Amino acid sequence: MTAAITRPASRSRDAATPLRVAASAYARDGGRTPHTAFHDWYADAAARTFTRVERVPLDALTGWETEPGTGNLRHHTGGFFTVEGLEVRMPAGPVPAWSQPIINQPEVGVLGILVKEFDGVLHCLMQAKVEPGNANGVQISPTVQATRSNYTGVHGGRPVPYLDWFRDPGSRGPLVDVRQSEQGSAFHHKRNRNMVVEADGEVEVREGFHWLTLGQLHRLLAEDDVVNMDARTVLSCLPFAHADLARELGPPADPFRAALFRSCDPSAEARHPLGAVLSWITEARTRTDVHARRVPLARLPGWQRTPERISHVSGAFFDVIGVRVEAGGREVAQWSQPMIEPHGTGVVAFLTRSFGGVLHVLMNARVEAGYMDVVELAPTVQCTPASYEHLPRSARPRYLDAVEGADPAHVRFHSVLSEEGGRFHHARNRYLIVDTDVDVPPDDPDYRWMTVHQLVELLRHSHYLNIQARSLVACLQSLLMPGEPAPTTERKTRI
Amino acid sequence: MTAAITRPASRSRDAATPLRVAASAYARDGGRTPHTAFHDWYADAAARTFTRVERVPLDALTGWETEPGTGNLRHHTGGFFTVEGLEVRMPAGPVPAWSQPIINQPEVGVLGILVKEFDGVLHCLMQAKVEPGNANGVQISPTVQATRSNYTGVHGGRPVPYLDWFRDPGSRGPLVDVRQSEQGSAFHHKRNRNMVVEADGEVEVREGFHWLTLGQLHRLLAEDDVVNMDARTVLSCLPFAHADLARELGPPADPFRAALFRSCDPSAEARHPLGAVLSWITEARTRTDVHARRVPLARLPGWQRTPERISHVSGAFFDVIGVRVEAGGREVAQWSQPMIEPHGTGVVAFLTRSFGGVLHVLMNARVEAGYMDVVELAPTVQCTPASYEHLPRSARPRYLDAVEGADPAHVRFHSVLSEEGGRFHHARNRYLIVDTDVDVPPDDPDYRWMTVHQLVELLRHSHYLNIQARSLVACLQSLLMPGEPAPTTERKTRI
Repeated sequence: MTAAITRPASRSRDAATPLRVAASAYARDGGRTPHTAFHDWYADAAARTFTRVERVPLDALTGWETEPGTGNLRHHTGGFFTVEGLEVRMPAGPVPAWSQPIINQPEVGVLGILVKEFDGVLHCLMQAKVEPGNANGVQISPTVQATRSNYTGVHGGRPVPYLDWFRDPGSRGPLVDVRQSEQGSAFHHKRNRNMVVEADGEVEVREGFHWLTLGQLHRLLAEDDVVNMDARTVLSCLPFAHADLARELGPPADPFRAALFRSCDPSAEARHPLGAVLSWITEARTRTDVHARRVPLARLPGWQRTPERISHVSGAFFDVIGVRVEAGGREVAQWSQPMIEPHGTGVVAFLTRSFGGVLHVLMNARVEAGYMDVVELAPTVQCTPASYEHLPRSARPRYLDAVEGADPAHVRFHSVLSEEGGRFHHARNRYLIVDTDVDVPPDDPDYRWMTVHQLVELLRHSHYLNIQARSLVACLQSLLMPGEPAPTTERKTRI
Repeated sequence: MTAAITRPASRSRDAATPLRVAASAYARDGGRTPHTAFHDWYADAAARTFTRVERVPLDALTGWETEPGTGNLRHHTGGFFTVEGLEVRMPAGPVPAWSQPIINQPEVGVLGILVKEFDGVLHCLMQAKVEPGNANGVQISPTVQATRSNYTGVHGGRPVPYLDWFRDPGSRGPLVDVRQSEQGSAFHHKRNRNMVVEADGEVEVREGFHWLTLGQLHRLLAEDDVVNMDARTVLSCLPFAHADLARELGPPADPFRAALFRSCDPSAEARHPLGAVLSWITEARTRTDVHARRVPLARLPGWQRTPERISHVSGAFFDVIGVRVEAGGREVAQWSQPMIEPHGTGVVAFLTRSFGGVLHVLMNARVEAGYMDVVELAPTVQCTPASYEHLPRSARPRYLDAVEGADPAHVRFHSVLSEEGGRFHHARNRYLIVDTDVDVPPDDPDYRWMTVHQLVELLRHSHYLNIQARSLVACLQSLLMPGEPAPTTERKTRI
């Protein structure tokens, strides 16, 4: 009953992946094309494409209707998504009950990056893509960004380029393949399948696509509004934790990077073993008594609908608006859709600290009504500071002051990044990574210090790290290599 | 910003746990008390307790009502559970749509085993517990089996003994703490929190409780209807995969156990790396288009309600029945409740095979309507053979013939075990582990060979292994040590 040993080819590949990822991160000036060439291509792509986004009344959205009785917004095909109401009860929470509009998009789409080695260095095939909600038109996107509607053809569009690589990733399988959640404050159970597939043959580079190393993508993450949310979440799922990073990338000179490298080493001492972290998550998910129920949008207490928008009577949170979009390059597409327009720029931040020379990230067990499973791990800070301006200082989110008041020398990462431009209109957050010396009780019910290798391990599985935390993990990856000089204050103050 | 190294006590404990588990499995004759003493205690417990279970019409269940309009069965307090309808659409499935009754019990209960070392050997505090659905009254249960209703007191009963150990497991945290699903064919999103907590002080042994080594529990698993489902699922989550098992337990003489030991070694060669297994699960969850919607029980197509039962017109599947229960020992409890009564004894089996001397288990990606996330990993075979008796041979479940027709010498495990006696009435399955040489294509969409250490790794997380697979993992653990002589044919044929 014993068969011959058949060593699967993919095993050794899996073991090598983190070092190949690191080598690609090392190539910050690009491998195939120098980074300056990217900028020419990107400027050109931006020039050749355009978006015209015009606000229109919710009743005037071509193809969309307000469902009689419920008031829900839906596409006449039944495809894409619906805007419905959600009634939430959380008896032990700071706000024990509320209602809100929510996007219901139960189908799981694909976010895929095709990678290929050139001269031994992994490159990612990235797309310059227009989304109606982008503040700046074009952003760098994954190779494929397909809803299930996209590939079943309900949108009536053309086939999605490169989608076949992800439909059939070949016998070696994908490098990354995991379903992850999106914003639980706006979506009901929305997930996307995050994939990275390595091409084993020739790949034609179509117009609007470009091969970039991880090092180049990491440089672009430091620029405002360039790398889109879908690209960030896929990049965050790349396995990059490995004991030999220092050998591969050279021993880092500064203590922060040295601690970051050690944090990527699975044998590094963690403040809490992974089992204790998992138990803390289990406890948070069990303790939190949350009941979310989809209800008609028409009768949401506290929300009112005018011809232009559905908004909260307090003016807080977000609005549901309608837009008519004309976008494209050589070919032009036109469509209308509802969008979510948040109020104010958010702050999304990791506080980091070294324990025993190993970098730890302070994670928050956060409840959002739309999560599949009650709680996900969020960044240390995730909020819209403007919401707290008129409230007493005691009402401010924990650690927001530690982020906003941080010595600039301790701010390791800072850029303004957009949320998904297909559903959110001008949703921008300041993403920060801030080194700190704050103290957190080891049994704090809401926060835990975690190493990077623990985050990477959890990212193999669904529903542990929320979308904002995943964006910041991609930003943390970008700190593996020393960066450019810090951006000028002037640029950062235009936020 | 660098704090002193504080090595958490729990880290070294976590690393040692699998070997402590193995040492307890080695103690098959009991550590604290010999195994014969257990049998006296068990017989005594069975004699001192009793259950009287009487069928009553669904309308005559004290405390329960049929909700006007929906026909759903619910408790007048709103607690415990409801019996509702579920409408399932699975367009690409063998049966594209069906309706069925389903138990809705959204609250997450606790299944907890308290463990403690005596003379350096871990013992589990087990309870002889009566459940109304048990075919034989008393079975061996976890220390604590508590619904949320139990500890919020909606049942009006006394406090649950030992529950405080699981409410506050101390600073070292639990050894096991993970929420796992139950039968997706009968429950809508039902989960329980599986916990193992190590007592760090004196533990009073109350009447009806007994300290048992894992080795003793493993022996009892080979007896019919002794170790209950809740005990099996908690035992399955114990980490027992370790490279040094052979050193700890002695090198096994027979090739099956040698392959099992190698399969527990995380460095052993697996047929598919874990990343490929996770990708296969992601693909199955994405590919399967399943829509389950709770609907009124009263208007379920194909189901009819008589005073005594709700049953399918075909006579297949299961019935919903009503029972009045009188049970107890010194104190007597009386209650009424609906129960699920399945038709026929099921078969639940692992096929195993060695590849390169490493034991692999053939896992099935199975869809059940009540799962949280579409698909979970099930045993190779999980079915009720009687349902296929009148169908053509081609309709029989895959690998059922390989199990039923197996050479007895290749049957490594076989006993009849009960499903949860609090919701199921006389639900019994033949649990088997059968060594085989069947071939499965490496890219079969529905089956994968997996090592034991991969199963143990996935059991740290929720919603990967279904309840039947977890029962069989506990049975597989029991094969780490050589067993008693095979039970007589006579005993096994009374099934």
